[in-house]
Amino acid sequence: MTLATILLDQKELELLVSRALENAGAGITAARSTARALVQAEVDGQSGHGLSRIDSYCAQARTGKVDGAATPSVRRSRPGVVMIDVAHGFFYPAAELAAPVIAAAARDCGIAAAGFYNSHHAGALGLAIERFASGGLMAMMFANTPKAMAAWGGRAALFGTNPIAFAAPVPDAAPIIIDLALSEVARGKILKASQDGQPIPEGWAKDADGNPTTDPTAALKGTLEPIGGAKGAALSLMVEMLAAALVGANLSKDASSFFDGDGPPPDVGQLLIVFDPNAFGGAANVAERIAAIATAMTEDEGVRIPGSARAARRAEADVRGIAVSTALLAKLRTLAGA
Amino acid sequence: MTLATILLDQKELELLVSRALENAGAGITAARSTARALVQAEVDGQSGHGLSRIDSYCAQARTGKVDGAATPSVRRSRPGVVMIDVAHGFFYPAAELAAPVIAAAARDCGIAAAGFYNSHHAGALGLAIERFASGGLMAMMFANTPKAMAAWGGRAALFGTNPIAFAAPVPDAAPIIIDLALSEVARGKILKASQDGQPIPEGWAKDADGNPTTDPTAALKGTLEPIGGAKGAALSLMVEMLAAALVGANLSKDASSFFDGDGPPPDVGQLLIVFDPNAFGGAANVAERIAAIATAMTEDEGVRIPGSARAARRAEADVRGIAVSTALLAKLRTLAGA
Repeated sequence: MTLATILLDQKELELLVSRALENAGAGITAARSTARALVQAEVDGQSGHGLSRIDSYCAQARTGKVDGAATPSVRRSRPGVVMIDVAHGFFYPAAELAAPVIAAAARDCGIAAAGFYNSHHAGALGLAIERFASGGLMAMMFANTPKAMAAWGGRAALFGTNPIAFAAPVPDAAPIIIDLALSEVARGKILKASQDGQPIPEGWAKDADGNPTTDPTAALKGTLEPIGGAKGAALSLMVEMLAAALVGANLSKDASSFFDGDGPPPDVGQLLIVFDPNAFGGAANVAERIAAIATAMTEDEGVRIPGSARAARRAEADVRGIAVSTALLAKLRTLAGA
Repeated sequence: MTLATILLDQKELELLVSRALENAGAGITAARSTARALVQAEVDGQSGHGLSRIDSYCAQARTGKVDGAATPSVRRSRPGVVMIDVAHGFFYPAAELAAPVIAAAARDCGIAAAGFYNSHHAGALGLAIERFASGGLMAMMFANTPKAMAAWGGRAALFGTNPIAFAAPVPDAAPIIIDLALSEVARGKILKASQDGQPIPEGWAKDADGNPTTDPTAALKGTLEPIGGAKGAALSLMVEMLAAALVGANLSKDASSFFDGDGPPPDVGQLLIVFDPNAFGGAANVAERIAAIATAMTEDEGVRIPGSARAARRAEADVRGIAVSTALLAKLRTLAGA
């Protein structure tokens, strides 16, 4: 099957997405910020957090499940802690608003944390922390997401796929960007197998009784397998404690879906931690060690530094534009009233 | 095979271990602290970080690979950052010395980090952070360890098994303690299979050419598999950045073994992060959410809360004593000159 695609300029695409969100009730600041994040995720090859989300974001803005006109508030509760009330709005404008406050706190205290509550889908976490690496800082992020995985040994979906992300500046190169969910695979892959009538590999999911399954339909009623068995399940508990319990957000088990306009806001949480290398080993020392790791990785044939593919993708998007299917473009234009 | 064991009182065992370390050249403060940590790990069922280490710790103290008489120094480089020069000594006395300074920084700033450099084997990381959970704080820890795992797609051992640990207080219950290495299995399991002449399961290790292997001898010359494939490898890179690069410690690829007295000190690093719930969601709110997670886990048949088995183990050790094999006891007595 060939899919007809059209190449669009990044700014033009952002404007179209922004208009779609505004049409659904989002304020202009929130719409612009959200559009930039979705288009950037698409450019970076993370389409699961890219244009594929527009339809459900618009649906949620229309029903008020996400408050597109929310005014997020940023409060520095302690010298090293910034608390952000996302106010049931989109995550991205709140993250942009808080970023300079978080960076300042990190430089003052050597380390700072930011807790986002009453929050929504945070998209490609790597994008949310890349800005700190670009400023010479290291950053780490944890997010809880609607329930999808069981505690180890259990049957009930208690934890989300609860991603972890990390960013660090690399001397004379693109930053290291790590961004991973703690499930073996994304739920979307199982959904696709179910639609295609294909079995799924062992190790992807359990059924509702807690037994391993290769039946995608049974898997969709069950839970996703964590990476590394008990270890990944323990890490998802850790993320739940950091991103939800510590910041005072909804637990994954109580959060509504990111994918439809039904029910109350998900009100999940995110925790961001930012480090100033100057307060630790010293900027020069830290840079030297990062460069040494990057060099050792590059010299080992077959190794790719996480995040290193982005620069090329972005340069290509800049020159060639972004490929959008004609079907998606038609839908976007309808949503945008264009 | 039945192994003859003798039950020893915990304090008596600590004293014997301490004397063995003192005999090998350790100062009394370092010896006592190290002995407490090793015996506690044994009680907690983490024998890989328990009494099995005494022989190699003594060997390292004798050759000076670890400086048993080191004076660690603690410096608060910023309001939220505590840097600890372990001075090529044992980790445990430095961690005990720094703990109150780290807790005070966390209460001042809402979050604090501690970076240990010129450091050594940190043993059971859960023990190092449990003290913060006991004081109502949350804590997380990262350690780099001598090289054992490859970057994803590579052949060279670049990263250690680089453990991650987490601790949180649970209302009216034992704290949650998570403590896991990022390799599928510990190297010790492969060593045992090699000694027994048994193949190892697929998924444990790669040979020196980067190919999956079930031959334990080839595996010992190769690398350990990370949990979750590329994801675990990325997490081990993250830990390397936090515990080694950020704090200014030796990279895993440059660190000498924890298991023998040969060569220079390993000089690895650890990063500890401590959170004051009062600065985030508020102590009552956070406690309520932690209790809700713990309850949901307990209600799901077959689920055990990580760390929850410790209380029973400790109570049993307190009443019955600690089982030590007669062979180990004889060796301990020799090392202790008793």
